[in-house]
Amino acid sequence: MGFYQNLQRAWDNSNSLLCVGLDPDPTKLPAMLRDQPDAIFQFNKAIIDATAHTACAFKPQIAYYAAVSAEDQLLATIAYIKQNYPEILVVLDSKRGDIGSTASMYAREAFIRYQADSVTVNPYMGGDSLQPFLDYADKGVIVLCRTSNPGGSDLQNLALANEELLYQKVAALAAQQWNNNNNVCLVVGATFPEELAQIRAIVGEMPLLVPGLGAQGGDVEKAVKAGVNGAGTGMMINSSRGIIYAGAGNDFAEAATAAAEQMRDEINQYR
Amino acid sequence: MGFYQNLQRAWDNSNSLLCVGLDPDPTKLPAMLRDQPDAIFQFNKAIIDATAHTACAFKPQIAYYAAVSAEDQLLATIAYIKQNYPEILVVLDSKRGDIGSTASMYAREAFIRYQADSVTVNPYMGGDSLQPFLDYADKGVIVLCRTSNPGGSDLQNLALANEELLYQKVAALAAQQWNNNNNVCLVVGATFPEELAQIRAIVGEMPLLVPGLGAQGGDVEKAVKAGVNGAGTGMMINSSRGIIYAGAGNDFAEAATAAAEQMRDEINQYR
Repeated sequence: MGFYQNLQRAWDNSNSLLCVGLDPDPTKLPAMLRDQPDAIFQFNKAIIDATAHTACAFKPQIAYYAAVSAEDQLLATIAYIKQNYPEILVVLDSKRGDIGSTASMYAREAFIRYQADSVTVNPYMGGDSLQPFLDYADKGVIVLCRTSNPGGSDLQNLALANEELLYQKVAALAAQQWNNNNNVCLVVGATFPEELAQIRAIVGEMPLLVPGLGAQGGDVEKAVKAGVNGAGTGMMINSSRGIIYAGAGNDFAEAATAAAEQMRDEINQYR
Repeated sequence: MGFYQNLQRAWDNSNSLLCVGLDPDPTKLPAMLRDQPDAIFQFNKAIIDATAHTACAFKPQIAYYAAVSAEDQLLATIAYIKQNYPEILVVLDSKRGDIGSTASMYAREAFIRYQADSVTVNPYMGGDSLQPFLDYADKGVIVLCRTSNPGGSDLQNLALANEELLYQKVAALAAQQWNNNNNVCLVVGATFPEELAQIRAIVGEMPLLVPGLGAQGGDVEKAVKAGVNGAGTGMMINSSRGIIYAGAGNDFAEAATAAAEQMRDEINQYR
């Protein structure tokens, strides 16, 4: 099955557009776990079990594992999802981007080593830097387009000679040149709903990964209404800190369930 | 000491602008090493010993290690350089880029876990995504500007409304906004000498990391004349495949010495 079909099935099975971000900062883990040798995996496992019924995808951010030499716990986390919740997609958030021969190695990292269903990539080096990822036709390639951080505007909002903005050009390239295998998606922050609507208009039904709600403060109603496609899907709406750190104590899993259910329901209200 | 001072010392000590790229593709290792459990480290160690007298920097490309679960061999490689050739700088080529909290984790990966002297980063997400790297004031932050791959033009050569090209804008931002700690460098491919000259004019004395000579086919004379600063330095000129795979057999180290010396001498001829 192609990536879009797998994603559609994940949306249908979960009745949810929520993507739960697994960004385990070692300094923020609950006291009951902090001293365990595999604290990150134990934390993730508890969060996964507590939120799987609310989510179409889980998104581990690889920097949180690489910074603390925890590649083995990232592997264990993804294997745990695949084994116990095979209908939920795994987005490896690594924002890779390099020339072709190196990009092949990064694609291997994401799709072979970690067995991710999809990966985030950076378009600055152009189409040939994305091709080794795109060649995995059943895997999702999620291209940075308009990001939710304040500095995102530094480059992405630059006006081109034809009055198009750079992020709009990236959206157009994604839809018109890079999507020959029907496996491209875009990262579009929720903090600018009017830009989300513009991008939806450029890319048709293409799925969007949308960070920036929850801890980053975006408005759920505006983001959902601006971003859904004609079928009321088309978005993976990510929340990381707002769910995984909803409770700071030993009740963190119960707090994560409540926060995830609330976010799922709020999103569903506006689809 | 600041990063620029360390780099100047490396140029002075080596009398070389050559940076040797350590991109060990497991399928290309010589037969005598291929079956050893730490084949990558053994290969790197031989290349390092064979070329250290010719180089101002070594540049391991992290994808080649991450794809094959060889983080331990990357650590061992960098530790070996630090212990035996402390005057040579280590550039971790990882092209990271993410929002602030995640970028902090990537900076920790490069500078704390791997003890690299400098790291390559991607500017697409803007200044705040670079800040956690820039805050390591004694470390080099090498920002992608104009890359040597064909697709590099897809975004980097787009003309902005003021007729500036996107890569020129990145060079200007690097020089005018991001370099408060005197630790910014730029990646500029050697395949377009006239663009190298333009960027040199925009950024003054700022050091450039220049890939694209050797296996990628750029012209050494044109690249050096276009890229050096007023002092005849200002460049780390990278060659990876042209040196590490100069010999395919068990004479790979001797072949690497010869290729590296030839490249160093050819560069020095035009400084």
